Amino acid sequence: MSDQLLRHVVLFGFKDSTTPQQIQEVEQTFAGLPAKIDIIHNFEWGTDVSVENLAQGYTHCFLVTFRSEAHRDAYLPHPAHQKFTELAGPLLERVLVVDYWTG
Amino acid sequence: MSDQLLRHVVLFGFKDSTTPQQIQEVEQTFAGLPAKIDIIHNFEWGTDVSVENLAQGYTHCFLVTFRSEAHRDAYLPHPAHQKFTELAGPLLERVLVVDYWTG
Repeated sequence: MSDQLLRHVVLFGFKDSTTPQQIQEVEQTFAGLPAKIDIIHNFEWGTDVSVENLAQGYTHCFLVTFRSEAHRDAYLPHPAHQKFTELAGPLLERVLVVDYWTG
Repeated sequence: MSDQLLRHVVLFGFKDSTTPQQIQEVEQTFAGLPAKIDIIHNFEWGTDVSVENLAQGYTHCFLVTFRSEAHRDAYLPHPAHQKFTELAGPLLERVLVVDYWTG
């Protein structure tokens, strides 16, 4: 068994037309995925508080951790994740995703 | 005491002209900062292995964790960090930084 974890880093920037209520719904729906998708090993998120002015228009960071690429590959097409992307997609100005292995 | 941690997410994309040796020097110098800056609470990094084609030109993710904004604010102008940014800056095509509080 490896102690390495696969980090799935998701950044969102919302359209100007997206309302605070819609943003909150996206946040809550994303944060609700671990309860619906048990292969999510760990989950955390927050809004940008950086001071370097290098956020490039992204305001939200979600850090989803998996134990394997197989789990990540099962997460992406999972119905709960797909439903979430259908909710969030039209509200987003920009999306960025990078995955990396720890240590 | 709060259990919250401040995550400092740094994404790099290198210029086409940057050599593999230069990229390795940037990786190793960044990874050497925790030994020089003891207010870094945790550090991990890796190269992008995502499969969604949403990395937006970024290939490297560094996750630097602090226990407070004061520590983050002391890290940024720290001489070892400044020296690192002088090394990396000219080699980078794009940089993105977001910070967020856990939980």
